[in-house]
Amino acid sequence: MELVAGIDFGGTSAKIGLVDRTGRILAKAAVAMKAQDSFDEIVAPVARCLDGLLQAHADRKSLRGVGIGTPGFIDKKEGLLIGGCENIPALKNRSVQAALGAAFSVPAFADNDANCAAAGELAFGAGRTFTDFVLITVGTAIGGGLVMGGRVYRGWRGFAGEIGHICVNPGGLWCNCGSRGCFEQYASGTALSRAYAEKLRKRGRAGGEISAKTVVDAARAGDTLAIDALQEAGRWIAQAFGSILNVLDLEACIVSGGVSDAGEMLLEPIRRNLPDFCWPQIGQDVQVRAGELHNDAGILGAAAQAFGRLEA
Amino acid sequence: MELVAGIDFGGTSAKIGLVDRTGRILAKAAVAMKAQDSFDEIVAPVARCLDGLLQAHADRKSLRGVGIGTPGFIDKKEGLLIGGCENIPALKNRSVQAALGAAFSVPAFADNDANCAAAGELAFGAGRTFTDFVLITVGTAIGGGLVMGGRVYRGWRGFAGEIGHICVNPGGLWCNCGSRGCFEQYASGTALSRAYAEKLRKRGRAGGEISAKTVVDAARAGDTLAIDALQEAGRWIAQAFGSILNVLDLEACIVSGGVSDAGEMLLEPIRRNLPDFCWPQIGQDVQVRAGELHNDAGILGAAAQAFGRLEA
Repeated sequence: MELVAGIDFGGTSAKIGLVDRTGRILAKAAVAMKAQDSFDEIVAPVARCLDGLLQAHADRKSLRGVGIGTPGFIDKKEGLLIGGCENIPALKNRSVQAALGAAFSVPAFADNDANCAAAGELAFGAGRTFTDFVLITVGTAIGGGLVMGGRVYRGWRGFAGEIGHICVNPGGLWCNCGSRGCFEQYASGTALSRAYAEKLRKRGRAGGEISAKTVVDAARAGDTLAIDALQEAGRWIAQAFGSILNVLDLEACIVSGGVSDAGEMLLEPIRRNLPDFCWPQIGQDVQVRAGELHNDAGILGAAAQAFGRLEA
Repeated sequence: MELVAGIDFGGTSAKIGLVDRTGRILAKAAVAMKAQDSFDEIVAPVARCLDGLLQAHADRKSLRGVGIGTPGFIDKKEGLLIGGCENIPALKNRSVQAALGAAFSVPAFADNDANCAAAGELAFGAGRTFTDFVLITVGTAIGGGLVMGGRVYRGWRGFAGEIGHICVNPGGLWCNCGSRGCFEQYASGTALSRAYAEKLRKRGRAGGEISAKTVVDAARAGDTLAIDALQEAGRWIAQAFGSILNVLDLEACIVSGGVSDAGEMLLEPIRRNLPDFCWPQIGQDVQVRAGELHNDAGILGAAAQAFGRLEA
């Protein structure tokens, strides 16, 4: 059996799994991280954890590679994380890829977490039947990944997929990135929470702490304001997808990440609005789907991109 | 010497040239067309003209292929022109590719004219030193082409590059395509003429017939309203380029077509505004250039895409 390790670095932990070619996770574990940890304080426990998983659950010789997903911009040649990883500052300008590749004497491949998500859905999830699709991960922020011709597209330097920062509304809301009108300000989990909180506040209804999950749960319970907030987010997502389809002529659009748990409450307004944002021939026959990997998306995505690049 | 024929179908004529691998045009000619011409009335004179060029200027055995550029959407498998060719209705649902390939017993390749423009700049023009770029043709309308990894990208069905119809201003101007806020409504030659005419009208200055060339000439003569119109178009182009760069991570943006004759008067505002519309790492080191093929762009582009696909 051929295995790769899928390692997903988040802000507070790294999730580690052993994955076979069919997308089965043989074993998984998580290692806690702190923002002030040094590079070695992050990587060494991850390596020990993976070593432990291999000893307990697999023949070490079956390990073909290590796939690594992180936030931010990863230089596709060196695997250097050159920026956009503010939650894990010790990784900046370092190569987890080189460190773990050396530790396990196998090829290692680091990629942006949204590119990994696209690789994961392509290999094991909602993208299995497609060769050309765009994926967005809608969580606190919005990430993006592209699959073209059956392969993850990484761009000139490896930075492709910053879909959260395309301008959907010139002169609109300021974004953390310093630009105005970024897609992320209108359709991320953060934006969804803010939109719902504003709607409640204007109607004199108590606010309290509102997460994207609060909004999705409220919509599911029939709260029309929460449903409206999801519909509006869906309209902005349709605009972003429409622009990308017009540029790239793809066969499917996939929505993953926490907010995609809203399911049809989010997908229906995307499908309904999409024709307003793309040329008729281009919108024709395009599928809009939710991601299928859910909680294991990080591990499976990191593993899938490694399998993909081992075969390349 | 290896030659291909480059044939560029416009609304009123087809331009035909014999082109070698270095981009030299050995001979060229044009054949007039009328909107009511039948398919055979269009294709037969083009074939006769190409035959004449071959007899007069080349050894027929040196012809390796025929490259064809047309407006509209071309199915990349069959070469069928499935729509978007309102100016040449007889070509709809027909394959010029099949007709000319059979007539000359060589491979023929039809592609959208903006994809051809990208192929032409890649092989012989401003894209020679780049492997990953986006090109827009700014004329009456806006067309788009993409080069990724050194090859023209055509998309799932062959419809990629409808950049003129990405939404840059939701709820904005209505477009012929039925959507609102399309890029083409803000930065095409038509949009530029309209913007300048409005500026003149509001200031009580006589209007008269205004073409994009009028605006460019006025700007060159120092007319600040015409300069402003070009600056505004440049800002919208920067927005569209920024969105595309964020999605695709490319190394260059090329502006071709008639309006690009404005040169730095258009390129400078694009460069100046671009950082407001893309993530810093993605905008870094991106080149913004004018196309270099000018009047021969149609013939050279059609030829270049044929050379590219002969080698594929």
